This record gives sequence, C-alpha cells and structure tokens, in this order.
Amino acid sequence: MLPLGQRVSQKITQVIKREMDATGAQEMLTPVLHPFELWKETNRNNEMGFELMKIADRREVEFVLGGTAEEMFVDVVRKYKLSYKDLPMNLYQFSLKFRDEIRARGGLLRVREFIMKDAYSFDVDEAAFQKSYEQIAVTYKNIFDKVGLSTKRVLADNGYIGGEYCHEYVVDSPVGESHYLYTEDGTYCAHTDVAEFERTKVNADETEKPFETFEQPQWVCTMEDNEKHYKLPKSHFLKNVVYKHRVTGEIIIAVLRGDLEVNKTKLEKALDATGQLENASDEDLHKLGTKTGYVHSWGHGDARYIGDVSLTAVKNFIGGQKEDKTDSRNVNYGRDFSCEKLADITMAKEGDTYKGKKLVAGRGIEVGNIFQLGYHYSHKMKGAEFTDKDGQLKPYYMGCYGIGVGRTLAAVVEIHHDDKGIIWPESVAPFQIHLVGLNLEDAAVKELAENTYKKLIGAGVEVLFDERTDVTAGEKFADADLIGIPLRAVVSKRTGDKIELKKRTEKTGELVALDSLLKPIQQA
Amino acid sequence: MLPLGQRVSQKITQVIKREMDATGAQEMLTPVLHPFELWKETNRNNEMGFELMKIADRREVEFVLGGTAEEMFVDVVRKYKLSYKDLPMNLYQFSLKFRDEIRARGGLLRVREFIMKDAYSFDVDEAAFQKSYEQIAVTYKNIFDKVGLSTKRVLADNGYIGGEYCHEYVVDSPVGESHYLYTEDGTYCAHTDVAEFERTKVNADETEKPFETFEQPQWVCTMEDNEKHYKLPKSHFLKNVVYKHRVTGEIIIAVLRGDLEVNKTKLEKALDATGQLENASDEDLHKLGTKTGYVHSWGHGDARYIGDVSLTAVKNFIGGQKEDKTDSRNVNYGRDFSCEKLADITMAKEGDTYKGKKLVAGRGIEVGNIFQLGYHYSHKMKGAEFTDKDGQLKPYYMGCYGIGVGRTLAAVVEIHHDDKGIIWPESVAPFQIHLVGLNLEDAAVKELAENTYKKLIGAGVEVLFDERTDVTAGEKFADADLIGIPLRAVVSKRTGDKIELKKRTEKTGELVALDSLLKPIQQA
Repeated sequence: MLPLGQRVSQKITQVIKREMDATGAQEMLTPVLHPFELWKETNRNNEMGFELMKIADRREVEFVLGGTAEEMFVDVVRKYKLSYKDLPMNLYQFSLKFRDEIRARGGLLRVREFIMKDAYSFDVDEAAFQKSYEQIAVTYKNIFDKVGLSTKRVLADNGYIGGEYCHEYVVDSPVGESHYLYTEDGTYCAHTDVAEFERTKVNADETEKPFETFEQPQWVCTMEDNEKHYKLPKSHFLKNVVYKHRVTGEIIIAVLRGDLEVNKTKLEKALDATGQLENASDEDLHKLGTKTGYVHSWGHGDARYIGDVSLTAVKNFIGGQKEDKTDSRNVNYGRDFSCEKLADITMAKEGDTYKGKKLVAGRGIEVGNIFQLGYHYSHKMKGAEFTDKDGQLKPYYMGCYGIGVGRTLAAVVEIHHDDKGIIWPESVAPFQIHLVGLNLEDAAVKELAENTYKKLIGAGVEVLFDERTDVTAGEKFADADLIGIPLRAVVSKRTGDKIELKKRTEKTGELVALDSLLKPIQQA
Repeated sequence: MLPLGQRVSQKITQVIKREMDATGAQEMLTPVLHPFELWKETNRNNEMGFELMKIADRREVEFVLGGTAEEMFVDVVRKYKLSYKDLPMNLYQFSLKFRDEIRARGGLLRVREFIMKDAYSFDVDEAAFQKSYEQIAVTYKNIFDKVGLSTKRVLADNGYIGGEYCHEYVVDSPVGESHYLYTEDGTYCAHTDVAEFERTKVNADETEKPFETFEQPQWVCTMEDNEKHYKLPKSHFLKNVVYKHRVTGEIIIAVLRGDLEVNKTKLEKALDATGQLENASDEDLHKLGTKTGYVHSWGHGDARYIGDVSLTAVKNFIGGQKEDKTDSRNVNYGRDFSCEKLADITMAKEGDTYKGKKLVAGRGIEVGNIFQLGYHYSHKMKGAEFTDKDGQLKPYYMGCYGIGVGRTLAAVVEIHHDDKGIIWPESVAPFQIHLVGLNLEDAAVKELAENTYKKLIGAGVEVLFDERTDVTAGEKFADADLIGIPLRAVVSKRTGDKIELKKRTEKTGELVALDSLLKPIQQA
C-alpha cells in the first residue's frame, strides 16, 4: 500500500471499526504465527482445501501463518472461566492473513497476504447466536453501504471454516469470482456451490423399457455425439465424472444427467471431504480398467459411485456401460444400477427453478462473509465452555465474520471509476480535496494557492496540494482524475482571486471565493 | 493484545503517527513476507546475528518473515524515477516484525512477533540526511515524552542494520537489557557495545625489562590466582579469550589487559564479522593444542590475534605463555609479541573515563532507535538512485528509524505502576474514566450510575463501566487499581446523588455532582 492507498485502507478500517464497536464487539489482536498444535486440535491441519503456510522456528517448533483465527480466539477465550453473564461476546481484530494461493489475481482481489477484519462470536445457545448473527448481518450491510458498495447477501459454502451455513456479501462485478443464482423476488440468493434447484422430470410419461446392450457407431463418444446421433437432448444420457480423494486415494465416480455439470464443492460436501477431491488422471482411469469416454455408471471395482438426485428424474437413460462398439439403453436408476448415495452434486444455472421460481445468474466480488460455526470448534477444543445458569459447563455456540480490507478497497475501485481513473466515495477518499496550483511562478497566484492550502488545513480538511512546477496543467488534471479525490480546487491566473471547485463526478466546476470554499466540503 | 491492551497500543500508535506525519513523513505498508531474493541483494541473508525466519510457498519460492524492511522500502522507491525535487522523503509503516529469538522475555519486552513503526529516509547527500536524522531525533524524544517516557539518547551499535552510527532511545529501568555509560555533564552517552574509554597507563614509570620464562606454582592459573600470588592488580597480567568464526571456522584470540572484559560486539566490529563470533569450545582449544587457562598470547598456529588498545598501556606484563609449570614475565607488546591489529575490543565500566570525564553506568529499556545507513543499501541495491540537479544519477543517502509499539507499552507499565497495578498516563490510557457502580440493586443508585455512563458517553468520553453485580466493592476497587485508568468515578448508596471522583495517583477522592463531572476530564 503506497501512501494514498494506505489512507483509503485506514478509512475503510475506521468505518468497519465504528460499526463493529457499535454492536458491542471488542477489538483485540492475536499473533499471525499460530502454534501448529492448535490446528491439530481441530484437525484443520489435515484439510487440504486451505492453503496453509507453515514455518518452524530455531527450536523446530512448528507454526502456521494464520489464514483464519478460530483456534486462536477459542484458545484465548477458554483461558478465562466465563459465565453466561459474560455472553454474548464478540471479539474482533484487524490482522494479516496468509493464503498460499496458486495464483494471485485482480490486483488486490486475490492476494497471498492481506489485512482482514475477523470477528468471533460466543453465545450461550443457538437462539442467542441467531440474534448475534443477524446483528452482524445488518452491520455488514451498513459497512458496505457506507464505503459505497451495494451488496447482496448470498448463501454460500462454508468450506474449511466448518459449521453448517454461511453467507457471502457480494458486490456485483464482471471481474468477481463469486457466481450465484437468485430469484427475482429476492427470497433466495445462493452461491452456485450451494444453490439448490429442482430437477424437472424429463420424460415422466414414458414407461420403463427393458434394459439392453446394443451396437453403437464407434464415433459416438461425447455428449455432443449423443445429441447428434440420437436426436435427443443431453438430459436423456448418463454422464460419469471421475475424481480421486487426495488423502485416501479412493476413486469417486459422480453419475449424473448428461445436461448437468458436477459442482465439486457439492460433491465434496456429499462425501464429507471438503477440499479433498481432485480430477482423476489418465493413469487413475487406466488402473480402473477404462479411459476417458468409456467410464461405466456401475461396476468399476472399488470405485465409490455418488449419483445426482437428477438420476430419478429420467426414465430409460442411454449410456452407462459404453464399450468399444456397444452401449446400453433403457437404463433406469434403482432397477438397473444404483449408487452409494444420491445427493445434490450438480450446478444450478440460470433458468433452473427453486420452489417454482426461475433462477437468475449473478456474478460479483465477495467482500465479506459470515459463518455459523455452532459447536464445530467448541466441541473439538478442550475447555471451550462457559458456566451456564444451572452451574453446568456448556460449549460455546459460535460464529465468525470476515471482511477483507484490501479486497473491499479493490471492489470500491471496480465500482467507482471511469476511463480517467478512480472516483472515490467521500467516506473512503484518501483526501477530501485535491488542490491544484497552476501558474505558480506568478506570485499572486502562488500566494492564493498557499493561503487556500493553509485555510483548508487550518479547518481540519484533508487536502492534497499539487504544487509541482515542472508538469503541465493537463498533466495535473489527468493526475487529479486518476487519483479520484471527490473535490478538485484549482487556483490559477485564469481563476483570478477565485478558486475553481469541481466534483470528480462532474464535467464543469464553479468559481468560489476563498471564504466560501469550506461550505461544500463541510456539507459533504 | 486483549481489548484493554489493544486500546493502549492504538493510542501509542496514534501518538507516533501524529508526530511522524508532522515531520512530513508518509505512512504506507509493505508485506511481511519479503522475497528472499531481496535479502540476497544486500547479502543480509548471510549475516548470522539476525534471527531470520524463512518460509517457502507451494512453488518453493523462498520468503523471509520481515525483521526490518530496508530492502522492501528501497525496492519500492527504486521503482519510481525520483529526482532531487522529490527529496527528502521519509516513508514509514506500522507493521508486524519477526525475530526468531532464542528466549522471549519480560512480557512484551522481547518477543518474536511484534508491531514496529519503522521509517526509512531518502536524502540527496549526507548534509541533507543529517537534518532528517536530527528532525527524527527530536520527534522521537517528543513521542516518548508524550506517552510518559523520559528517554536518553544513547549512541549504540548498528549491528545487522548496517551503516556507520545509530542511537537508541532508552528508558531507565532495572529490567532493561540496554547497558550504557554516560558522563554526568550529558556530553557523552553510549551503549557498552560502543562506549569508548581511556586506557590509563598502569606503570608508565617502569622501564622494559628483559623477557623471561620462569617457574610458577602450578596452582596459579586464573586472574584471581595471579592477584593472590603476585600481589599485583589484574591490570599487570595478560588475558586471552578465544572465539570461533561461525562461517569461516577461524579461531580468533582476543588479547587484553587482565582487568578488562572483551565486548564481543566491539570485537566483531574490529573483524567486520557482525554476529558471527561464538565462544570457542573445549574441542576448539584442544585442536589448537591447548586448554582453558593455558592459551598463549602468541604462537597458536593459524589463530588470528586481535589485541585491545590497552596492551600498550602496560609495561612488563606477566603471562602470555603459561605452560604446566612455567609462565613468562616482562612481556612487552611490540617487542615480545604483537597482534594482527590493536582495536577497542573491551568493555567500558563505571569509573572509566571518556575525554577525562568519569563514566557513570546506566541500564534501561530500548524503546526506539535511529540509524544512519548512508549508502549501505543504495550501493548494494541496483537502481536505488535519484536524478540530481546536474542530471546525474546518484545513490540515496539513507537512514532508518524504529519504535516498538508493544515494547513502548511495556516500558510505560514498567515506569508507571505501583504495587496495586498500572497507572496509565492520560495520553495512552485505555479509557479516560473508570465508572464503578456499587449497590446497583438499589434502583436510585442504578439510575444515577446509568445516567452518569450515558452522560459521559454522550460527551465523547471514553468510559469503562463496571456494572457487575456479582463482585464486592473491594474487588471492583482492586480491579480499577489494577487496570489503572487515570480517573475513577464511584456511584453508590454512600455517594448519594453525588459521584466520588478519584485520581489513580491519589488516595482520596472528592464528591462531585453529575453536572460538574465532565470538568476534570476535559481539563485533563
């Protein structure tokens, strides 16, 4: 963060802090070097979805560079013998987080080291927690509104964080990585990793015909070949996608309707294997006795078959047992084959329905998220409990809440800019006013420019004074537009004893006297 | 940092920030993961005195957890083609620093992860730099004064930072690790690692007698044995201390007057081997063909002999070639033996003199330091240069400046406390007032307590409200003393419709009406 960015970052930090403090949350600070022992306590050291960075000190004690800090906060809180009277409690920090991302991207959107406001709530039970959760939900919306970001609250996957549900705060943007679906009445909005949708019956009228194997031209191999050859939509065909479990080495075959796509996050959830599946390699398929395009929907030795719930929405599938010159047809789930389990493992898309309502696709930048954690950590970490009214020790019911400061800054820029540069919202602008001095070789102009600067500074206004003498007026204006401070004040020969005041959002300004310069700023 | 400590830490941060901004310095922020490549550029990766923590990412790219950030700031600045018009420039940050300390100690005094304000100045030449350096020196004194710390500016060793000179800001305290010496007139104050002192002639009147080897009782081995046997002060004897160079494996023998002690930092400086010497082991001595107590001041094969300048201040030394039953006497430096070099390698102590003035010993906590860096980094790092008036590219003349926020906090506590707890100076107190409500089961008292709280909050006063109902008055008062907020306000049955206001520093308080409660706070 260079000086201007740092000022914006601090403004965003202050907005977040004020809103968090207003909820009764308390700021503190935990180290970024987390004892690895703590992560072992919750078994997160074995979850591969999370890009942990590990380091050993000179005594060979291992530390994790913190990516999130659930263990650290639980470890602090359990040191105190709290009672129900101390709850609810919400503790937060602004601290560095580390993710060993394969690819950083989008400037500040996805980076490997960043400042995050993370908060952790401790409640007596689920009902109390739900109040805390909704309070933070409202607070988050306010925070983003205040920094100039309109957000959607999107149901999302909680991944390596644990817990049962969570929400992302998403700012619509074509550069975002969060893809979601929503009903236009606003009653449902969910990330594609969790979005539910109805599998409409494809051919409810048909009766189940006898299973048969038959000859098929050898060129018919892909879904597109099927469509062309059979003149039937993709939904009539069986599709198999093969994965391998990173830790156990198991082969997982996802079986689904040909028009659908696997959502790996959903599949991992169905298998309780967050972040642990990878695409099977050619070698894996070879070991399985098959190859791409010839995977069977049943019968591959030890492979585990997981079916999408769509399998029961189609009668008389084609496919499922493709060999060199043959395939099978009239394949019916339950009669001719079945999977270890049927689950929601496929991706919803625009046009699908949820409770009868059409889903619309959206895309945006995730700037914050809130997680129900429940007892996920307090059950695993010994002593994470409080004394309840009845004198019994009970585990905390927890939640956690994050906002990426740098990503929020980047999202503000994505939303508030034109082709000339940034247009900072007043709440987070690095300075309130950009004072441009032109013709400073003229003593009178120079004096007015300096008096203007002093008057603004004296009034406590944050002012950036461009008093350079070796660049042209055009360069100064271009820089002002690029930097994007909401107000520009120009002092020059042309403005005489007045000052030209222009909003970054407007094309033309107006001439004002030095004495009335403060008015528009104080109104702002 | 728990919530109260975090508030103090932020207050200290604000004091530092205000004073730094007033100098024209600009805040920014660099990552804590430093590309290891940068450290190779300055060869700091090979200096052992610095406790670096290193980490590799998933692509096996190496990073250092930043301990100081000279390379990072030079790397940022060299990306811009600056000219002399942009200088002087001073950039600073508050960021996490890491030191792989063998032993953390003293609470926050010596830790492995801490927040430091570090600043880096870039000047056109030495004369300009000296102004920058003195400006920061004054600023540092102000900062420490404002947080309640009286500091001494102590000339110190710059160690792994490089450069030619530096100063520590030291708060006198018996728990500090900085030992220094000063003249009572205040003209000289230096850390023992650099403090110069005069070696007075021990026996200037004597004439050099002929060197001889003679029989010595076998029990005479240590300096104490010498004193006892010869009835002469230790200064008449030669002393040898053996070190090994960690990297080259060379054996270094320091030769000095028997009444002096080696200062390893001075010895390392004389050898240009910062942080690279360790005590020789018994095995090292064995390889040298000797053992403890029998090391010779000359003649041990490849060993390098470095003598203290005191060797020329004594005539007719005893010692230098102790064997089983013999030793040598009338040993004179230059005539009978000589070292590779004579240098200031011994420790000054109270009672020694500097320019004829007696040195007094002091001890304290180092809370800040300022370093001249000169061209140390700008010569090593390619492109670390600006365009001067004459159009030529010239290297930056640099300095750097650090304040440990946590250590400053700890020093404030060391200085401002009594046996009941902390006594925070107003400038850094976590809250301005500690409101203690007693007898809250009484509706009238409860109402007054809550009104008091609301009035204070409404006036923008930072107030900590102890509204607990399950602890005694004694416990509340003890907690208030422990926490150490400067003002304590008590509302109870006993105080009636008044409020008892007491300073943490005083034994008794006074009763004031709610309406006049704000006065002493706003005066504060």
